[in-house]
Amino acid sequence: MKQSKQKPNPPTAVTLETQLTSTRLAGDGSDLGIDGRRRVVIEGVRPEIDGGRFPIKRVVGQTVVVEADLFTDGHDEIAGVLRYRHEGEQTWSELSLVFVENDRWRASFEVRHQGLYYYTVTAWIDHFRSWQRDMRKRVAADQDVTVDLLIGRDLIKAAALRADGGDAARLNAIAAAMGHGEERERTVKTVLEPELADLITRYADHPWPTIYDKELAVIVDRVRAGFGAWYEVFPRSCASDAGRHGTFKDCEARLPYVAGMGFDVLYLPPIHPIGRTFRKGKNNDPNGNSDSVGSPWAIGAAEGGHTAIHPDLGTEEDFRRLVRKSEEHGLEVALDLAFQCSPDHPYVKQHPEWFMHRPDGTIQYAENPPKKYQDIYPLNFENDQWTPLWQELKDVVVHWIDQGVRIFRVDNPHTKPFAFWQWLIREVKRDHPDVLFLSEAFTRPKIMYRLAKLGFTQSYTYFAWRQSKWELIQYFTELTKTDVREFFRPNLWPNTPDILTEQLQHGGRPIFMSRFILAATLGANYGIYGPAFELMEHRPQRQGSEEYLDSEKYEIRAWDLDRPDSLKELICRVNRIRHENPAFQNDLSLIFHQVDNDELIAYSRRSADGKNTVLIVVNLSPHYVHSGWVQLDLQALGLQTGNPYQVVDLLTDASYSWQGPRNYVQLDPHSMPAHIFRIHM
Amino acid sequence: MKQSKQKPNPPTAVTLETQLTSTRLAGDGSDLGIDGRRRVVIEGVRPEIDGGRFPIKRVVGQTVVVEADLFTDGHDEIAGVLRYRHEGEQTWSELSLVFVENDRWRASFEVRHQGLYYYTVTAWIDHFRSWQRDMRKRVAADQDVTVDLLIGRDLIKAAALRADGGDAARLNAIAAAMGHGEERERTVKTVLEPELADLITRYADHPWPTIYDKELAVIVDRVRAGFGAWYEVFPRSCASDAGRHGTFKDCEARLPYVAGMGFDVLYLPPIHPIGRTFRKGKNNDPNGNSDSVGSPWAIGAAEGGHTAIHPDLGTEEDFRRLVRKSEEHGLEVALDLAFQCSPDHPYVKQHPEWFMHRPDGTIQYAENPPKKYQDIYPLNFENDQWTPLWQELKDVVVHWIDQGVRIFRVDNPHTKPFAFWQWLIREVKRDHPDVLFLSEAFTRPKIMYRLAKLGFTQSYTYFAWRQSKWELIQYFTELTKTDVREFFRPNLWPNTPDILTEQLQHGGRPIFMSRFILAATLGANYGIYGPAFELMEHRPQRQGSEEYLDSEKYEIRAWDLDRPDSLKELICRVNRIRHENPAFQNDLSLIFHQVDNDELIAYSRRSADGKNTVLIVVNLSPHYVHSGWVQLDLQALGLQTGNPYQVVDLLTDASYSWQGPRNYVQLDPHSMPAHIFRIHM
Repeated sequence: MKQSKQKPNPPTAVTLETQLTSTRLAGDGSDLGIDGRRRVVIEGVRPEIDGGRFPIKRVVGQTVVVEADLFTDGHDEIAGVLRYRHEGEQTWSELSLVFVENDRWRASFEVRHQGLYYYTVTAWIDHFRSWQRDMRKRVAADQDVTVDLLIGRDLIKAAALRADGGDAARLNAIAAAMGHGEERERTVKTVLEPELADLITRYADHPWPTIYDKELAVIVDRVRAGFGAWYEVFPRSCASDAGRHGTFKDCEARLPYVAGMGFDVLYLPPIHPIGRTFRKGKNNDPNGNSDSVGSPWAIGAAEGGHTAIHPDLGTEEDFRRLVRKSEEHGLEVALDLAFQCSPDHPYVKQHPEWFMHRPDGTIQYAENPPKKYQDIYPLNFENDQWTPLWQELKDVVVHWIDQGVRIFRVDNPHTKPFAFWQWLIREVKRDHPDVLFLSEAFTRPKIMYRLAKLGFTQSYTYFAWRQSKWELIQYFTELTKTDVREFFRPNLWPNTPDILTEQLQHGGRPIFMSRFILAATLGANYGIYGPAFELMEHRPQRQGSEEYLDSEKYEIRAWDLDRPDSLKELICRVNRIRHENPAFQNDLSLIFHQVDNDELIAYSRRSADGKNTVLIVVNLSPHYVHSGWVQLDLQALGLQTGNPYQVVDLLTDASYSWQGPRNYVQLDPHSMPAHIFRIHM
Repeated sequence: MKQSKQKPNPPTAVTLETQLTSTRLAGDGSDLGIDGRRRVVIEGVRPEIDGGRFPIKRVVGQTVVVEADLFTDGHDEIAGVLRYRHEGEQTWSELSLVFVENDRWRASFEVRHQGLYYYTVTAWIDHFRSWQRDMRKRVAADQDVTVDLLIGRDLIKAAALRADGGDAARLNAIAAAMGHGEERERTVKTVLEPELADLITRYADHPWPTIYDKELAVIVDRVRAGFGAWYEVFPRSCASDAGRHGTFKDCEARLPYVAGMGFDVLYLPPIHPIGRTFRKGKNNDPNGNSDSVGSPWAIGAAEGGHTAIHPDLGTEEDFRRLVRKSEEHGLEVALDLAFQCSPDHPYVKQHPEWFMHRPDGTIQYAENPPKKYQDIYPLNFENDQWTPLWQELKDVVVHWIDQGVRIFRVDNPHTKPFAFWQWLIREVKRDHPDVLFLSEAFTRPKIMYRLAKLGFTQSYTYFAWRQSKWELIQYFTELTKTDVREFFRPNLWPNTPDILTEQLQHGGRPIFMSRFILAATLGANYGIYGPAFELMEHRPQRQGSEEYLDSEKYEIRAWDLDRPDSLKELICRVNRIRHENPAFQNDLSLIFHQVDNDELIAYSRRSADGKNTVLIVVNLSPHYVHSGWVQLDLQALGLQTGNPYQVVDLLTDASYSWQGPRNYVQLDPHSMPAHIFRIHM
């Protein structure tokens, strides 16, 4: 590795290409703004998202593998380096690119700090290695190499001029010896040594390097961005005595329960004052009454807006205490960012220009015609005062950062302008690179991906609706085996307060178990909405709806956490398995293996160092025992064909001795619908 | 279609993205250099080669289909246009983009003139259509729409302000009627009409359009670039009496023969004076003697260099006459550009700085150690005087253009810098957009593609070595079904003076027939090196070599063109079929169909208008009769399932009545190894 001064990109052949498609040039090559002697081409640099428009994502400690096509005209040897630097560094670190195949070169670097890294590629003609290669062939063909030795001597002398003391002396000595015929044999041996090429490379002049015209970026987040189990809970339902409005103090009392199940993030729906105008009643009744507690997403009342706390939950100090206490339990509090207002929100009076006004003088409420959401006023981002609006919303985020929050779950980001999020996230992370944003955009794929590209740390996914084996394999292959893996970090939720899938409504305990295990083992990040999940709440508001009956979105619920059928033991075990096995802590190693039964799905994951390998098999049917033969990709698992290996089911502690790729599995969904094997070689 | 003034791209959200990955911004949105109200996103624009760095290619009369992903936040309707213009036009033409699926939009335009076209995409929120869509839902749900009518009225009035006389009056009348309750029903009907949206679109203000940040380019060539049959011949072998050095006049006499076979391009190896120093003898003998004629690629002697004509061929006037006479026969003369010098080339004395000098004072000859090519000095493009060198080489091209040449076959372009070719081709085509360049780079795939991207009109391919069914399908799928199709125009050669494949050496007449038919029907552009090809010359210089024995590269050959076994009749027939059937005249429609026999390959092609469809079936075995069932993709052929159709073999005039996708074929390589069916519906 070598340090070099950071220089602005000089014009390159790549610049020329752009010009040639759009302007006319004078006839003289010197007008090109390039040096025609710059002969190496760099293309196909990866990773590169949308032509370098968007950064890729990593967490601290992960590796960025960079590849590029490098080639030149003619037969000269070439060499190149990967250059990278943290945004706080002025100099590039350089690593030699290594030839792979088919003009492809590769190098990789580890990201060690939060913030932005930049990387790019430089390459040049390696005249000395070209000379060495030809020299070897000449010597092998027993040709007269007298003149060729002189050519090599000049190259060595030129390097010596730029070399440090000892190296300069060594190079000069070699060059001097090359003139003497009697020492020819020994001289030839010396100058053909690969080590000499390395030495000369260190000092070589390559006056016309090609420098890739883009500096590509990596957003590096802290480790939590890449691995975590989320638990969503309504604070107002945390009271120990049924019917009472829960408080932050009640949440504190709930912490041992949540932490005890092994979760990492405690996500709270909005904690702000709730509007009274058009307040919804139970089960989304548009005619709520004064007893209704309303929806936490109808934000803002006389008591305040997005920076205020609902008085029934407690004070700012109570909230900060909850954040601290959570930390003591190994939990981080995540807040909801829902940028919309109830008609009673202070913004409505203070900033009427931020809302859409109708010709009758009223403010436009949220609609999806013919449906009306009169308790919600959307912000109008097309208003003339959009810059103060953007600034205010950023101030909201900073306010909660000041209260100790570092994770935000963003409600419906796809209903606010993309440029706004890109600006907001970049602005916030500039001062607080440890802040993470989860995008809750259940919408069309390109929109979800765009939000991820422009900066969201994590994203909700279609996981809840990917239920068959084919759907799961297709979707997770897209997420982990295409460019999507570079910018989109999936966070898998089997349920949310808005999503009670039909499968969960009808599949009983086996489906809650299997969907939980799928979420927790297919992705490094996952979450559940509890206690509804672990208590297997499955009654829909009505037939065909994915809404919960008696949803906590509109009322306070009391939950019997000690119910004997609770899944909390399973959840606890799976979270412990995830923490103890690094294989679960990144998304990129996921590989599916064939099983000759469409109800059984098998996949493996490995830790980056290859030392920890797990194999998961899930019975997707909630009804029937299924068995089949798993056909393992032994190479992907790091196993030698022919050698026996041990698989230990981390769920049951059962141990099996396997050999070869084909192995039999049988799973009864009513006892345990999955194996989570650790593979011991 | 609508004309709009060409404006420089204003900053867009796309610009913002680039900034956000590389710089830090002030906290105030107004510093972004963008308008935050610009809400539509444009991405995934296709065709776009290497992020827009390179132009795509078309010929006059072809169509460019442009697609883009367009979407916005929220639920508003959006609209967009494809903008395009010829480089000579100041204003953009605009065409509405039409929604396809999954946020994908599409429009297409025809290129009518040679030169460069530019295209890009613009999109915006369509507030009136958003309002209309919601209005329809409200009316359907029988909601009170009083206020909504007022909102719509304002939108209509705003458009009326920008509308022309009649339209303005009409819009104002509609707006006025919207206030009157008693006319409500009729008013609602009027304002929901799609025609009203079209009218308003014509005048609508969309103050914050997103303009794609790239103007992508199309190089448009004349039709010959996209369709042609080449015939390569050594002029010095054209004499009617054996042993005499042929002249341009002899070539003239050969024109009826070549034109009679239906060729379009007559390609001549270098016609310049040939060096005497280290001149090669027959069969590449390094010890040639004064009787040797030498290799035409060892360019330059006392008589002159790249702009001179070999005295034994004739004069400049003879050459110009050959060009004219060729035209009269429907043939275009293509010249060879081989930028290398014999030791006797005038450049060696006039411009010693353009060559590499060795420490012993000699000039570096071409080498591929341990092989030496002492009759060739390569140009050293790394020399300090590279700009005069570039200019001189351009002048060489212009010299031949001045003699009437419009097609150049470029020898080994991959041994000269990429930037040089990009500059040269662009420079030449700026003044002479009708000039075409064929790249002879038989090298690694990425290098071949790079040369095509940077401007070569056509390219030699790996066709000669793609012989099995699997190889052919794989290769031609890559050429015609990936982005490669946009910039790489294949020119298929079953043989060249350098390439006598092992298959041709051993396969006899059947393999010459099948390889010819494959070349002429798999690609719109193909060529043969004759008369070696039609006379089935197949003797290699030695076992394992692809060089011809007694190669015309080093000696004058006499050919008996009237040999009864000549393939000229087949060639004539196939070339006529190609001319009569537009299906053969573009590369992009190629589709392979399944055959249940690995020795039979089947593929179809269609004309752009779908009116002309051909199906080719070739027996790849030179030895055995093969038969099998072809499984046709009827939809791709434009056929209705169930309807019978007629296929006429254009090679034999035999006619068959087929029905359904499965049909039987049998081919005897010793009589005719292929069917070329025209499909009649």
